[in-house]
Amino acid sequence: GKMSVVKLEECRERLRTELDNVVDFWLKYSHDNVHGGFFTCIGKDGKVYDELKYVWLQGRQVWMYCRLYRTMDRFHKPEILEAAKAGGAFLRKFARVPGTSSGQWKCAFCLTRDGKAVKIQRTIFSECFYIMAMDELSRVTGDEDMQLEAEEMMKQLIYWVQKDSSGLGRPQLPGDIPINSMAVPMMLLCLVQQLVEGRGQEVVQKYRELGNWCVQQILQHIQRNGTAILENVSPEGSELPGCLGRLQNPGHALEAGWFLLQFSAESGDEELQRTAIDKFVELPYQYGWDKEHGGLFYFLDVDGHCPTQLEWSMKLWWPHCEALIAILMAYSQTKRPELLERFSQVYEYTFSHVSLHCRAKRHEGVVAALAILAVPDST
Amino acid sequence: GKMSVVKLEECRERLRTELDNVVDFWLKYSHDNVHGGFFTCIGKDGKVYDELKYVWLQGRQVWMYCRLYRTMDRFHKPEILEAAKAGGAFLRKFARVPGTSSGQWKCAFCLTRDGKAVKIQRTIFSECFYIMAMDELSRVTGDEDMQLEAEEMMKQLIYWVQKDSSGLGRPQLPGDIPINSMAVPMMLLCLVQQLVEGRGQEVVQKYRELGNWCVQQILQHIQRNGTAILENVSPEGSELPGCLGRLQNPGHALEAGWFLLQFSAESGDEELQRTAIDKFVELPYQYGWDKEHGGLFYFLDVDGHCPTQLEWSMKLWWPHCEALIAILMAYSQTKRPELLERFSQVYEYTFSHVSLHCRAKRHEGVVAALAILAVPDST
Repeated sequence: GKMSVVKLEECRERLRTELDNVVDFWLKYSHDNVHGGFFTCIGKDGKVYDELKYVWLQGRQVWMYCRLYRTMDRFHKPEILEAAKAGGAFLRKFARVPGTSSGQWKCAFCLTRDGKAVKIQRTIFSECFYIMAMDELSRVTGDEDMQLEAEEMMKQLIYWVQKDSSGLGRPQLPGDIPINSMAVPMMLLCLVQQLVEGRGQEVVQKYRELGNWCVQQILQHIQRNGTAILENVSPEGSELPGCLGRLQNPGHALEAGWFLLQFSAESGDEELQRTAIDKFVELPYQYGWDKEHGGLFYFLDVDGHCPTQLEWSMKLWWPHCEALIAILMAYSQTKRPELLERFSQVYEYTFSHVSLHCRAKRHEGVVAALAILAVPDST
Repeated sequence: GKMSVVKLEECRERLRTELDNVVDFWLKYSHDNVHGGFFTCIGKDGKVYDELKYVWLQGRQVWMYCRLYRTMDRFHKPEILEAAKAGGAFLRKFARVPGTSSGQWKCAFCLTRDGKAVKIQRTIFSECFYIMAMDELSRVTGDEDMQLEAEEMMKQLIYWVQKDSSGLGRPQLPGDIPINSMAVPMMLLCLVQQLVEGRGQEVVQKYRELGNWCVQQILQHIQRNGTAILENVSPEGSELPGCLGRLQNPGHALEAGWFLLQFSAESGDEELQRTAIDKFVELPYQYGWDKEHGGLFYFLDVDGHCPTQLEWSMKLWWPHCEALIAILMAYSQTKRPELLERFSQVYEYTFSHVSLHCRAKRHEGVVAALAILAVPDST
């Protein structure tokens, strides 16, 4: 049904309450006071059901605490700052491991409770969350070494993505062709925005070119005469054959929309704003929404085949959070009433179907999403 | 409801028809007459929706054709033999790739249509299916080189599993502790049975010790005073901490039961037969069956937590095939009426819920399962 501005105020109130509850939960149950770092697998009763420490979640939680501390008055508390610093110390001590190429550092994907590396992924994502944590932490502590460390890791990441990926550890195979996978420029654009926010002209300058490159790489995913966003394309921006090439991930497309909207607002690029809304907010909502039962599908095949991912039809909480953020951002930039309608629909589905306590393992993703949603007016 | 012997005869008739349909389908649509090998991603209309060639499925199809040709009169046709030989030639030409340790061969996990390696997994499973294909093919062609090739690869596999796994390509990490994962001894036991079947005393002798070792490794998964089968245990047979340690995979347990029953029948080990039935057929059926909606869960957590695998609650066709085989084998060895009851229940659920055309990608798994089910009386 129609959503009035009063109702939007109700949403804000609800999200504020949820955010408070979620932050309370993680402050209370996730801190490992013996070995440092955060437990990431916690049941809704607060009990730790697995002691493994996933590096991306450690990084996300450090980022979260710092961002809350720095930008929202009610979270500007010593307890939160101390927890962020302790988490950062654990990350710096244990997350970085020597890479396969000499002189390069990788981040482990997963650590034991006492910080021993369990697994290293052959991708860039753990490193991304490490950078995010270090940059945000350097902002609240004023520690310039930490900021430098973030920028050093960023430099290496850019090298892997743009110049030579062999340091990631994947064997070079003749059939393993290069791919522009949405996740990569999307994450990098998010990092660029993190690193330049409020920094001086020098830093802004340094990452301007990379930001534009990320935007171009993301726009390459608009395929089939503008009727589809595909998750994987060739480095030249053409469609790839097979399931990989036909794969759609509506949540990723909407997340890219969110970052593009942010970028277009900062650069005042109105054409990019229009493209972001039409192709990365409206379009993935159109093809990704389940017309029968509601909710966003996790994966789809652009030609209507059954995706090979077993979980393709599941309605997971994080694509819905990403959708809420992207749609709300589009609305706040344009005030177009149909975007408020859309927000209302996703909001109602999300809060009637997704329990914020389900799948506690990825809980701080919720924290992140809610915090971002709540930032504008809730200080 | 009760199932009479007459009804069992009806089942056999139905499985026979299904097997004929499935083999017809794959003969008609899967052969790549340009590059050799088999397409593995085929829709129910027969159209190829992805050209990638998964090595384990290539191996399984070669094995299937040979096994059908060799053991069942109605499939003893030149067309099937020729297809098996062509598939074997494709595998020999393209599947093996140099490993990370010098002098060692790995099998690719996945090839392009024209045989270029796309991905290499850091596990032993593609190699297992390569061995299976080569051994079975050598039986119908009488090609001793091929049999030697199977045994050479087997030797290397045993070395990786029992002596030094570094050739698999995983970096050695301090937190990555050794694990006895059910899949490994289960697959190896299956290979032992494949390699020794009908061979002379020398070969039987050669693999006897390995067979016994596999059985011991599998029995280590009986945990919690005999009340649970856990998927991952320590190499000494104790429970591991966390989600990994609590993981249950009812389909794997039942599959292990099938191989143990076969092994116990060949060796005349009645105690092992009892253990196989009580702990690897009855027990996983008890904890793995969904009492509310029917069907076997894919994954469970022994303490009742929600498994972290998104697909944990899905009812997939292959665990049901494995269950049907294991239960029927237990019944045929013991003639215990309650096992026939159990078979009836799984059979009725499977054929009323699982379409044999769904998820065509793994179709030849069905072929394999049905062929094994059908072997006893359908020649």
